[in-house]
Amino acid sequence: MKKYLLKYWITFWLIWPVVFSLAADDSSFDRQEFARQVKKMAEAALKEEKAYEFLKTLALPGGRLTGSPAAARAVAQATDLMTQLGFDQVRQEPVEVNRWQRGQTEKALVKSQKKGPHSLNICALGNSIGTPSRGLEAEVLEIHSFDELEQFQQAVKGKIVFFNIPMDRTEANPFAAYGRAVPYRTNGASAAARYGAVAVLVRSLTFRLDDFPHTGLMIYDEQIPRIPAAAIATSQAEQLSQWLKEDPHLRVNLKMNSEQCPPVMSANVLGQLTGEEKPEEIILLGAHLDSWDLSPGANDDAAGCAVALEALRLIKEAGWRPKRTIRAVLFMDEEFGGTGGRFYAASASRGSEKHLLAIEQDNGGGPPVGLVLGGGAKIIEKAEKLEGILSQYGINWIRPGGGGVDIGPLIQQGTIAGGVVPETQRYFDFHHSALDQLSSVHPREIELQAIVLAIVSYYFSQEGI
Amino acid sequence: MKKYLLKYWITFWLIWPVVFSLAADDSSFDRQEFARQVKKMAEAALKEEKAYEFLKTLALPGGRLTGSPAAARAVAQATDLMTQLGFDQVRQEPVEVNRWQRGQTEKALVKSQKKGPHSLNICALGNSIGTPSRGLEAEVLEIHSFDELEQFQQAVKGKIVFFNIPMDRTEANPFAAYGRAVPYRTNGASAAARYGAVAVLVRSLTFRLDDFPHTGLMIYDEQIPRIPAAAIATSQAEQLSQWLKEDPHLRVNLKMNSEQCPPVMSANVLGQLTGEEKPEEIILLGAHLDSWDLSPGANDDAAGCAVALEALRLIKEAGWRPKRTIRAVLFMDEEFGGTGGRFYAASASRGSEKHLLAIEQDNGGGPPVGLVLGGGAKIIEKAEKLEGILSQYGINWIRPGGGGVDIGPLIQQGTIAGGVVPETQRYFDFHHSALDQLSSVHPREIELQAIVLAIVSYYFSQEGI
Repeated sequence: MKKYLLKYWITFWLIWPVVFSLAADDSSFDRQEFARQVKKMAEAALKEEKAYEFLKTLALPGGRLTGSPAAARAVAQATDLMTQLGFDQVRQEPVEVNRWQRGQTEKALVKSQKKGPHSLNICALGNSIGTPSRGLEAEVLEIHSFDELEQFQQAVKGKIVFFNIPMDRTEANPFAAYGRAVPYRTNGASAAARYGAVAVLVRSLTFRLDDFPHTGLMIYDEQIPRIPAAAIATSQAEQLSQWLKEDPHLRVNLKMNSEQCPPVMSANVLGQLTGEEKPEEIILLGAHLDSWDLSPGANDDAAGCAVALEALRLIKEAGWRPKRTIRAVLFMDEEFGGTGGRFYAASASRGSEKHLLAIEQDNGGGPPVGLVLGGGAKIIEKAEKLEGILSQYGINWIRPGGGGVDIGPLIQQGTIAGGVVPETQRYFDFHHSALDQLSSVHPREIELQAIVLAIVSYYFSQEGI
Repeated sequence: MKKYLLKYWITFWLIWPVVFSLAADDSSFDRQEFARQVKKMAEAALKEEKAYEFLKTLALPGGRLTGSPAAARAVAQATDLMTQLGFDQVRQEPVEVNRWQRGQTEKALVKSQKKGPHSLNICALGNSIGTPSRGLEAEVLEIHSFDELEQFQQAVKGKIVFFNIPMDRTEANPFAAYGRAVPYRTNGASAAARYGAVAVLVRSLTFRLDDFPHTGLMIYDEQIPRIPAAAIATSQAEQLSQWLKEDPHLRVNLKMNSEQCPPVMSANVLGQLTGEEKPEEIILLGAHLDSWDLSPGANDDAAGCAVALEALRLIKEAGWRPKRTIRAVLFMDEEFGGTGGRFYAASASRGSEKHLLAIEQDNGGGPPVGLVLGGGAKIIEKAEKLEGILSQYGINWIRPGGGGVDIGPLIQQGTIAGGVVPETQRYFDFHHSALDQLSSVHPREIELQAIVLAIVSYYFSQEGI
């Protein structure tokens, strides 16, 4: 929010020294000239809407579950695309990833003496073991918090625990609501198995009532027996809860044949515009090439990948020649454990490279609203010189922040995090479900993300951190 | 954008007097207490999502073209809804409006010696006369600007002029692009008729290539013969342009039976929370109840109406007791000439009422991003005291601005304009076409608009302008 108040109240003689020192600090950066160049670049970008074309190409292999044949196709396709775009040093860096298969069977049948059998819309959570091949049948215990699980621990044994915890709609920030509900998906199975549960059903993580299960990663506690874990569509969770009120002894027959497979080789895909003065200093634009398997993962995270590639293309097309290297890294395996990010940071290929800034785009394809940057006040001050330029493309604030699964290992090594923050009110409508389709991403919205990313990354490639 | 730079550089002794005078100016307004109350209000709002329910109710009569039976049903429905919500002084204020009917026939057939006949997706522009009942057939002259029209004026006579002017995709601000293209829709017919054109086809105003004509108001110059005017879907405009290259002599047969009807009585619908201390001082929340006829007008402007009603409901439910009156006015006839706004401002019912602030919501149901206020720096300063509160709900800037067709006459009388500005990159995808359906509005996004509107209107009802 503009500080009009400050602007109006502080008289000229108070402001003058500030303005003067700002100018003195501006070094070689010619803001007006850059603004002119940005305008031209952005006009061409919005006219051509190439980010959406890249999105379509990248999403073409469909659900790109880590280790799957579709993920392998995506690696090949992304490599081809970067090569076509004429990026420098386009390459794959091998990553060994865990592989898990959903299998063909995912069924949950409600059996109640008061009603006929009803089928529930479920899907295995990522990493879950399957059931015995004949299925697994038990009564259901509905639970609304980990505290309640503790309270009813005596009743858990032999049951299917049904974690019916909605994402908190009262929360204006969707990611905050997600953050509070996700532990039931991630850790619910082991928490319930500790008291003898035979399986868990976890309410899908979306604000909306829909008929689609939303999957996601679950993790087993090594000390506790593994039990099958499935997501249940929110509409079905409401229904099941109602049925349980009518018949607390209803049983659910659960049949899934998901399974762990041996690790396979996959790859991160890299391409860059090599810096002309300090090629070993890197501004990284990261996103993840893998997705869940229930949809093409248009928002999560084909959009981020498309935006990273488009940002590089825009810089190249504008004829801008970065002093430092700007590199797009399409990471493998964000969703299934983050191996791609760890491999990248630890790889011998990093050699003498110094990563100044790592920007991760993994919050969907919405219109950009803000910019987050780690590393403290100085870097934010530096970015604020772009204020009038970025505001043309939706960026109305710059705040401390940034981070993510893929760039996390770099950040731990001292790289500064960054991110172009999109509007996300619709994000969890699609997230990790069959609904994350191309039609949910808008060409102009991701193009604006790419424009902002191009501006920010090029600026820091010139000015350093 | 936060002025971190300023904040860090200006030392404490410089800032101190500012902070002190801020505090001194704060009068009775307890920001912390208000923030607490807002949080509670907003949590309930986001949980219940009533704005979307209101949207559904208000859009139920379908396309609510001014003067139509559907618009009359909408007036009744809105009155019932406000009554059910327990607002004060719910009433209809009569407005005489012009009525126009699209009629049943809208056909455009391409006849070319090189191809068989092709039907084009067109619709009459609002206010257009029809064609003779047998249709009207002529060659087509494609024109790309008013300048070009002047240049080719000799060639216009007897032709159908085809204004093929796309909304400028290079423009980041959709409303700016709309503003530049809309004169061809509004004034194109008379501009072409001046040189003897027999009809105009105007490329629809949307960034996208779609198969739906987007209608909207056109206005005849009284001095020039009236000719029929139709919008053509963007995909069809591209097609027609291509065909014209192949066969410059192709003919189009246009048949429309749209017509002006005698004026009818309709109404603005009002409801309010009457101020407890200064009931004659009004904070007005305006939106328009009429829409175009091709869709339920979910974004334009059932969303604005829903948001205005929900803002009032939220204030009432929170138990807030406004000192000044907060009034929702659902205007009739924004789309067809703005009579509702003019009647409202000129009505004898205004009596001793003094309108301090008029907020018009008519930019669609997107998530809120900013706040505009007229009246100069002082009112913006006042609003900026809400900064930390509003930013929780998406508002990241407050800028000079505000206005609109409905509140225009009030503004001319000295009322200060305001508006909660939503994100609009998708707005023209739906605008004035069959695509402006309920599914294009998101429950959380309009709820956030309503929350912001409730905060801003209640604040000014307490603090004055």
